[in-house]
Amino acid sequence: MSDLTRAAGRGPGSKEAFITSTQELLRRRGYAATGVNEIVARSGAPKGSLYFHFPGGKEELALAAMQRAAAQLGAIMEAILDGGDDLGQSLARLIDALAAGLAASQFADGCPIATVALETANESEAMRAAAAAAFDSWLEVISRRLIAAGFDAAAAEQRALLVLAAIEGGLILARAKHDVAPLRALRPQLIALVDRA
Amino acid sequence: MSDLTRAAGRGPGSKEAFITSTQELLRRRGYAATGVNEIVARSGAPKGSLYFHFPGGKEELALAAMQRAAAQLGAIMEAILDGGDDLGQSLARLIDALAAGLAASQFADGCPIATVALETANESEAMRAAAAAAFDSWLEVISRRLIAAGFDAAAAEQRALLVLAAIEGGLILARAKHDVAPLRALRPQLIALVDRA
Repeated sequence: MSDLTRAAGRGPGSKEAFITSTQELLRRRGYAATGVNEIVARSGAPKGSLYFHFPGGKEELALAAMQRAAAQLGAIMEAILDGGDDLGQSLARLIDALAAGLAASQFADGCPIATVALETANESEAMRAAAAAAFDSWLEVISRRLIAAGFDAAAAEQRALLVLAAIEGGLILARAKHDVAPLRALRPQLIALVDRA
Repeated sequence: MSDLTRAAGRGPGSKEAFITSTQELLRRRGYAATGVNEIVARSGAPKGSLYFHFPGGKEELALAAMQRAAAQLGAIMEAILDGGDDLGQSLARLIDALAAGLAASQFADGCPIATVALETANESEAMRAAAAAAFDSWLEVISRRLIAAGFDAAAAEQRALLVLAAIEGGLILARAKHDVAPLRALRPQLIALVDRA
């Protein structure tokens, strides 16, 4: 990469910085409240390079951020759920990690997809599809781990849906209350659901 | 009410129309994407009367819409859950009603509070508190019905939380997928949870 390319913000570093700042803003405030100028300011990259990397502007950038967030949280879920022999204890660690992230961010960092999914489900087909793909990828992670714990495929699919839906709902309630209590109260109930193979 | 008051949009009819149009827009698109001009256009009331009824503008209007939506959905939940002897069957009817409303609106009409709750949890203390109060009022309805079905108070509170969280999460997934399948798949699992007193 030439010095000129780097100075113009056309290297991979700027592209990454735009995706990261978009991820943070979408997670905390959603799509409509996130402005391109704010993404640029937070990224530290030159504004002129945003449309070089993302000619489709804010929507294309949001799609990249959603895909990145889905993959990152999916990898975290997989690492935690596969990180122990007892699925109930692993699920408890996942819920604790989500609660800790929420509390550490003053209840700003909930699900990185849910807000955008709800805002755009009837506004952008591309964003709706990206949200659906994110949820499907997480369901797949949970379902695979349930099968490894002894659930048959159909039961695992159903139970994974209940676990993910409850966590998503718990994150909404925890953000609204500015309190991790809903996640803590769901914890033993979800452990019981996955221990019952 | 004088003819002049009515013509100026200062009667109760205009106030109601503003609240109703705000409710519809918040539910479908969220807070940030909803503009005052769109609320006015949809309401059919004169724009000049909006700040007469809601001097605090969009946020005050949104708070009124959230309180109205919380009360309306709470009343529907109560009517359906109290409308039969078998709580499992009543809960199934509630889930079916939510799924039918979602499908009839091309997956636009999910939870009237969730989108706004996620968008504003760290942006407006008043809206955050209104969202928390809405969820608490619904938890209260479900919990009371669980106690009537034989759960003790502590178990009812826990179980109500799991039921509401799962429904909220199911509505997100259904909107993202444009498919009621997630709600249908949660249905038997939630029935099983409330039948186990």
